[in-house]
Amino acid sequence: MLLRDLGEWELLRRLAAYAPPGQLEDDAAILQPGSAPLVVNTDVLVEGVHFSDATMAPADVGWRAAAANLSDLAAMGCSGVVGLTVGLVAPADTPWAWVEGVYGGLSEALRQHGGQLLGGDCSGGAQRLLAITALGALGAGAIRRGDGQAGDWLLSSGPHGLSRLGLALLLQELPAAQAQGLSADLQQRAIAAHRRPTPRLDAVAALAASRPAGAPWRVGGTDSSDGLATAAAQVARGAGCVAELDRDALPIDPALAQLPQGEAWCLAGGEDFELVLALTPAWGEALLAALPGSQRIGQLIRASASAPAGSLRWQGSKQPLEAAGYSHF
Amino acid sequence: MLLRDLGEWELLRRLAAYAPPGQLEDDAAILQPGSAPLVVNTDVLVEGVHFSDATMAPADVGWRAAAANLSDLAAMGCSGVVGLTVGLVAPADTPWAWVEGVYGGLSEALRQHGGQLLGGDCSGGAQRLLAITALGALGAGAIRRGDGQAGDWLLSSGPHGLSRLGLALLLQELPAAQAQGLSADLQQRAIAAHRRPTPRLDAVAALAASRPAGAPWRVGGTDSSDGLATAAAQVARGAGCVAELDRDALPIDPALAQLPQGEAWCLAGGEDFELVLALTPAWGEALLAALPGSQRIGQLIRASASAPAGSLRWQGSKQPLEAAGYSHF
Repeated sequence: MLLRDLGEWELLRRLAAYAPPGQLEDDAAILQPGSAPLVVNTDVLVEGVHFSDATMAPADVGWRAAAANLSDLAAMGCSGVVGLTVGLVAPADTPWAWVEGVYGGLSEALRQHGGQLLGGDCSGGAQRLLAITALGALGAGAIRRGDGQAGDWLLSSGPHGLSRLGLALLLQELPAAQAQGLSADLQQRAIAAHRRPTPRLDAVAALAASRPAGAPWRVGGTDSSDGLATAAAQVARGAGCVAELDRDALPIDPALAQLPQGEAWCLAGGEDFELVLALTPAWGEALLAALPGSQRIGQLIRASASAPAGSLRWQGSKQPLEAAGYSHF
Repeated sequence: MLLRDLGEWELLRRLAAYAPPGQLEDDAAILQPGSAPLVVNTDVLVEGVHFSDATMAPADVGWRAAAANLSDLAAMGCSGVVGLTVGLVAPADTPWAWVEGVYGGLSEALRQHGGQLLGGDCSGGAQRLLAITALGALGAGAIRRGDGQAGDWLLSSGPHGLSRLGLALLLQELPAAQAQGLSADLQQRAIAAHRRPTPRLDAVAALAASRPAGAPWRVGGTDSSDGLATAAAQVARGAGCVAELDRDALPIDPALAQLPQGEAWCLAGGEDFELVLALTPAWGEALLAALPGSQRIGQLIRASASAPAGSLRWQGSKQPLEAAGYSHF
């Protein structure tokens, strides 16, 4: 059964089953006003750029698409998810089973993290893609890229690089000898990190819970969807600071650290969807205690003529650390 | 200058100029809570399906994309626009000038109708497309497709079919003799209707202003983006009724009515972005007085075995009126 056979109306009718009854019957969705400010974020995920049938099942595509958006909500300080709208574009020869799998994965992510399918649109097109807008409710305060300060600790909510290893395994990029040397456990965890990333809404809750008594709300941060180094550089640039990273305290899985690619993938592998935060040392220490897996990775220091705002360097070194980001164009 | 030459970061930097300062610097946008419920709507517009360089300039593409979304907000009962997020997909060889034109048109529509560019995302892809999510503030009450009742008048906020004529002129679909017979004024109005449609947020204001004293808020309706007949059928189906249309009172421009295609384009041309409303006769009469250009086009009547809910017929006829909708697949 292809989308061409279903037609647009039958497709919309089937997609409506993923939303609360009646939700998709109108021109738009109404959100009842809550007390918290809403946060809104849009991401597009394009086949061949952000996902591929070669590396994941349709349900993984849906899960990842939702998770990437919810990660941006977490990176903004959301404690709850209101829901998603989904713009689906697919060629007419796309099997319904693919769409069903994608929406199944989206729904699974919403069941796990909260929120509903609020609405959407679909169209034919040359290439499969999802344009997702996520709406969330701000928690105790906003996390801003620009709210760090010199002297802040830099923290990561969890390890980095596993998603990139998972991708390498799925694409069979690794030399056979190297791949065979990896434990089954590491391979499974890496592939799961790539296919089923977890948006760190729980880290936002831990952040609020660990705020020192009387401390004003001031949290710099972003998520590491574009890689740890890019995230640290964004937080540093926002604060007008340099990010000094502790090379001996990279947030990297011990097994991954054994690989020659380990450090590079930790820094620039991307799609880890952890939070990278700038906090006062007191708050940072409290968060480390409250959030298992979180790690102090460095600190923000004043920029200078030789170390401009937004640059990275290793602690103890005067050299800038260059980490190539990933550009979609 | 192509997107490939700019790279993703420079592209994002340039797009940020269309939003309030700092708005696009974070992972997501924060909306300060208002007293009105928010309405959210997502549309995707794909080159070759919804727009084409052959028929419109980039600024028209941007305007139309915004207008189509704002029309859905109006169709839900919004009186104000909060803003838009834009997911832009384009091949790497897309000129920056095209993107600049599109965002210029989007901004123009927002300046005219209110609201801001709230955020967005961009990616490379095989085909140019825009995925837009619009957020609006609900006005005095919601307009629901399902809120009509038997006995309601059906009203249109304005004429239909001009946009389809404009498209036919731009695609040079009309026989030369016929095209030459059209006045320059009609041609210009038709092309403007196609390129620069007006979302009828003003009609929502007139609707609220014309509500009879003491009447409960109950308004069935939708917009006619998929054509007048489809809109009337949706309102009828939502109400469990038949839409009986007055063939002598079709909301059609007098000059368009002279063309052999006139009636068909009025009913099913699509992309007129007017509101089609189901109202009590008293409210309907008051709205006709309050909103110049609005027109009574028929009424909702009880469905029956021979005339099922959601069907259309001409007033005075027992035959169903078939109007082909437009399917994107």
